[in-house]
Amino acid sequence: MEMPIPRPEILARKAELVERLREVLPEDAVISDPAETRAYECDALTAYKCAPLVAILPGSTKEVSEALRICHDMGVPVVPRGSGTSLAGGALPTADSVILGVARLNAVLETDYDNRFIRVQTGRTNLSVTGAVEEHGFFYAPDPSSQLACAIAGNIAMNSGGAHCLKYGVTTNNLMGVTMVLMDGTVLELGGAHLEAEGLDLLGIVCGSEGQLGVVTEATLRILRKPEGARPVLIGFDSNEVAGACVSDIIKAGVLPVAIEFMDRPCIEATEDFAKAGYPMCEALLIVEVEGSDAEIDEQLGLIEGIARRHNPVEFRQSRSPEESAAIWLGRKSAFGAMGQINDYMCLDGTIPVSQLPHVLKRIGELSEQFGLGVANVFHAGDGNMHPLILFDANKPGDLELCEDLGAEILKLCVEVGGCLTGEHGVGIEKRDLMTHQYAPEDLEAQMAVKDVFDPKWLLNPAKVFPLASSDARRVA
Amino acid sequence: MEMPIPRPEILARKAELVERLREVLPEDAVISDPAETRAYECDALTAYKCAPLVAILPGSTKEVSEALRICHDMGVPVVPRGSGTSLAGGALPTADSVILGVARLNAVLETDYDNRFIRVQTGRTNLSVTGAVEEHGFFYAPDPSSQLACAIAGNIAMNSGGAHCLKYGVTTNNLMGVTMVLMDGTVLELGGAHLEAEGLDLLGIVCGSEGQLGVVTEATLRILRKPEGARPVLIGFDSNEVAGACVSDIIKAGVLPVAIEFMDRPCIEATEDFAKAGYPMCEALLIVEVEGSDAEIDEQLGLIEGIARRHNPVEFRQSRSPEESAAIWLGRKSAFGAMGQINDYMCLDGTIPVSQLPHVLKRIGELSEQFGLGVANVFHAGDGNMHPLILFDANKPGDLELCEDLGAEILKLCVEVGGCLTGEHGVGIEKRDLMTHQYAPEDLEAQMAVKDVFDPKWLLNPAKVFPLASSDARRVA
Repeated sequence: MEMPIPRPEILARKAELVERLREVLPEDAVISDPAETRAYECDALTAYKCAPLVAILPGSTKEVSEALRICHDMGVPVVPRGSGTSLAGGALPTADSVILGVARLNAVLETDYDNRFIRVQTGRTNLSVTGAVEEHGFFYAPDPSSQLACAIAGNIAMNSGGAHCLKYGVTTNNLMGVTMVLMDGTVLELGGAHLEAEGLDLLGIVCGSEGQLGVVTEATLRILRKPEGARPVLIGFDSNEVAGACVSDIIKAGVLPVAIEFMDRPCIEATEDFAKAGYPMCEALLIVEVEGSDAEIDEQLGLIEGIARRHNPVEFRQSRSPEESAAIWLGRKSAFGAMGQINDYMCLDGTIPVSQLPHVLKRIGELSEQFGLGVANVFHAGDGNMHPLILFDANKPGDLELCEDLGAEILKLCVEVGGCLTGEHGVGIEKRDLMTHQYAPEDLEAQMAVKDVFDPKWLLNPAKVFPLASSDARRVA
Repeated sequence: MEMPIPRPEILARKAELVERLREVLPEDAVISDPAETRAYECDALTAYKCAPLVAILPGSTKEVSEALRICHDMGVPVVPRGSGTSLAGGALPTADSVILGVARLNAVLETDYDNRFIRVQTGRTNLSVTGAVEEHGFFYAPDPSSQLACAIAGNIAMNSGGAHCLKYGVTTNNLMGVTMVLMDGTVLELGGAHLEAEGLDLLGIVCGSEGQLGVVTEATLRILRKPEGARPVLIGFDSNEVAGACVSDIIKAGVLPVAIEFMDRPCIEATEDFAKAGYPMCEALLIVEVEGSDAEIDEQLGLIEGIARRHNPVEFRQSRSPEESAAIWLGRKSAFGAMGQINDYMCLDGTIPVSQLPHVLKRIGELSEQFGLGVANVFHAGDGNMHPLILFDANKPGDLELCEDLGAEILKLCVEVGGCLTGEHGVGIEKRDLMTHQYAPEDLEAQMAVKDVFDPKWLLNPAKVFPLASSDARRVA
């Protein structure tokens, strides 16, 4: 993946940059030693690495504002970084950039159970938001797989989802307001602890903007009452197509499970070897979870069983205890780790209309054969959010490129059937050159014109989201 | 309310404008006779009237694009109009503007039950969207009071809600994609029939943009399965504060009714005189409706009854039949008509955090005394969306101005307690000068800079949303 050429005039002013940053940040919040900046050389898309010029760890909105103003003055690009769990290279530095890490911005600023919100600094991890409210019986709904590590800042940047987003929506549906610092240091307050707002909905455009518009330092998040209970079922099928059709029928029937997760045979096999969750060996497994009181759960699972039985499942296993529930989820939650044990993999993130599941799974199988690379599927089927894992060997010359080509074909397939390039991982560097497959030139131009408003010099998170040629041309020298 | 001065150079070129519009639109789609253009002189904020220069009724996206290009070339402002039901003056023309009505854009373009969406032209009325899918057991969730008349175009412009939005969300939560024509005629496709999209979320910013960014001609809308059943309860209290506290406790308990509607004594009295729904005479009434199977309904209503009883209601009436349900809703649905029979009124639309209901209702009562104008309250209490109706006499000199001053005080109160100026009616002309109470100058500047991108000459829907001085200064001559 091509990256922009570092500008020598920036590299030459490193000492001055560090000195000015130290005037507004604590001593230990400015990291300039190459041995230490290397800690920020990549995110979870580890195929690409590049150490930044400097890394900074501001501890307040004011410090973020002052540091950004300095970088703006000096024309230095800034790459905001949550916890670095991006699978799309969303936090990959350039060699002439400052990495702005939000790790020190992790305080809870306010909790309000009457009005069901929490206000936090955005370096706080996703799971620790729930941690701050769970003793009062509340939780924060979006639950990316990386929720133990990932920061709210990154969740907002990527509009993250998770297994339970079928019912509760993704980040944008649970975000009420933000404090955002623009590249020139201006501090904006968008939205707040109330039902929507008048004027243009800038909050909506910030969510999912991948650090292109500003650095979000504080967020007001909707918290929800924990449901009385939840119960999963495990349903096995002898073909991907039939499992896909079952998902489609559940959705069409208007039942609203909190999660419908899908695993295919390559994934089941790898997972069983690794986690020994006791999954049946079949072509496709669904995990369907519903929530509510016992009576509500029984009723919903009754409907789901009726639909599933019409598709002749080879297994229908309903949990009868918390232990059995944990066992059903164990394999799914271990899937990514299991795949990582046996192969290098690239995790894709396209979305498709649910009714296209059977067709798309079949085509992925064909493409996998054609490219000679295995593909395992484990994903949020209920909302059509696919996560094909392409298996490759990072030590074999040419394999990464082959893998990227196959990934591009699969994502183009998603667009073809009426879906899109990313459900929750973002575009990052990974998919920037595929954007022209989704958008007409005038659609992309409108997006870039909005970026112009917030970051006229194109200094924030360079070389991401938009095709490299377009974004590089727009950057002001 | 001050309006911009019509530009004589535009008025002078009316004949040329009409001739050019007739080249791209059918004969009967260009209305220039002042006797006929007067039909478009106001929307539902009837205190303000101004006939447009010309009215056009295009029948396709292509016709909209060609007509806008002509207006753009000639520097003529364009005011998009749905069905003209705006309560905030969102479709009020200026004397030098072209009204662009979407009434002829009313086709259903596609229905897809597998993937649960419908694609329509945006002149279609809200209720007829549900009409197009209900025989298959589906419905479109947002339900403004004006749903029989109001157009999807207006719903998108105002991000409309309705009584049932507590559970199903407002328009932005049910809108999947749009076709939008920019002022210069460029046609954009935003979003689509899939879970979110990569890049900047321009769809989110279009929803609620009040015709400031473009003319939305087609929309892809999420449709939902009709629930098995629904049942309301009517709960009476002897004070507004206690009713407000009960709403707050229901929300806090995590029960999710589809609607929690609130009426105070002035509203109950007027409604009973008018509709004779058999409501008890008390200080405050709640209508709480839940949905699902009979078992689910029983369970939810049991919880709600438990909460309500702790607040010593003077009445707790559960519907036992469809007829009783209709009777419970009859009064609420007649409330606006009932008020209109006895008084002129202005309907406000602020939102507040639910826990602030008791305090805000008390302050509204005090302000009402202070200004000497009655205020009746009927509103969506579950999501804190207030609709105070200020009663005044349009024939009494000075009463409208007094009413507007009181309205401004009430809306400022909403902002003070952490709410905002509008839940679903929009800013229009009504609240444009209050925007500075909600937003800091840099927040407003960011919104206006985004408007610059889509409509650099500021020709679309002039004199709305932003403070008049700001928007007038930005308009390119």
